[in-house]
Amino acid sequence: MMNIEEFLELSAGKWFSHRTSHFVATQKSEGNKSDIIFEFLPADHPEVIKLCEQHEVNSSKASCGAKVTWNGTKEFKGEKYSGSSVLVLVPDEDKSNEGKLLHKMSGGEKSLLTGRYKLGSDEALTLTTESETIWSEERLWFASPNLRMRVSVVKGKDGFSMASFSSEIRMGGAPANAKASQAANSAK
Amino acid sequence: MMNIEEFLELSAGKWFSHRTSHFVATQKSEGNKSDIIFEFLPADHPEVIKLCEQHEVNSSKASCGAKVTWNGTKEFKGEKYSGSSVLVLVPDEDKSNEGKLLHKMSGGEKSLLTGRYKLGSDEALTLTTESETIWSEERLWFASPNLRMRVSVVKGKDGFSMASFSSEIRMGGAPANAKASQAANSAK
Repeated sequence: MMNIEEFLELSAGKWFSHRTSHFVATQKSEGNKSDIIFEFLPADHPEVIKLCEQHEVNSSKASCGAKVTWNGTKEFKGEKYSGSSVLVLVPDEDKSNEGKLLHKMSGGEKSLLTGRYKLGSDEALTLTTESETIWSEERLWFASPNLRMRVSVVKGKDGFSMASFSSEIRMGGAPANAKASQAANSAK
Repeated sequence: MMNIEEFLELSAGKWFSHRTSHFVATQKSEGNKSDIIFEFLPADHPEVIKLCEQHEVNSSKASCGAKVTWNGTKEFKGEKYSGSSVLVLVPDEDKSNEGKLLHKMSGGEKSLLTGRYKLGSDEALTLTTESETIWSEERLWFASPNLRMRVSVVKGKDGFSMASFSSEIRMGGAPANAKASQAANSAK
């Protein structure tokens, strides 16, 4: 079974993402397409250390991180959007594949969020975050090493609820680590 | 953690399903909406016993099953579609939450398929089936007791590949079993 570092290394590269969002209350949907650059960050990377400091977490406890940058177009009006985020994983002391998630979004608003991550026995990674107004859960997994699925559910405390699905195709940047690729292959 | 029977009992009821399919090669998408009736079938239900016989499996080894019936409309041309399927789960001898999946589709074509099911540690149910021409994986989980997510990936041996996402809202038929509902609640 893949471990969390292998999962993130397999995620590294350039992806084409096709996303559809379902607005639960109105039953409307909205599509968009984007290019995503996913960078794996080792535990000693300056961005990992910086985010730990911002969250007041001892950076020696972080296992690794990732930086995600996107550029996209909304299908409905052709509106462009872009942004980036940094994630850092801090495993629980007794468990290697789950723990605390440190998160920072940039691009427009800036926000620091804390949540949880868990790599399940079925090799899907679940990320949850909660703020005063929003609860969010994202699941990612590989249908194959070059086809990634991602579903996020966002619920507002005011009852608003949105579910988004992304099918993502690898456009370049082979997995850094052949072992991770083999792990994903052998899962099929 | 939920067991597989609790997962299927929580699935029972009437659902409104909003589905979007992504065609990976062409990057096109297609939407449709349907009503789905999901019935939990106990191990001694005649439909469970019948499907075991059709698959030449000893029905005393089945743990439970489900019957799913749908009526829908494709968004693009307003075309109607309907169908039903029966699933039976036959757990592995040493594991309660994974095993063999017996499947039968009706409505138009008829087909018997065998696959695998697994309820992961993150309470997502994965169903895989494979025929001579198609490999298919479906993942289902509850974002809340009344909001179910479902993603299926279908790959043809000819390279065709489609990913479908359904967000499903419970329209009626409360969970048969309060325990299952509590399990899903406590997972949040």
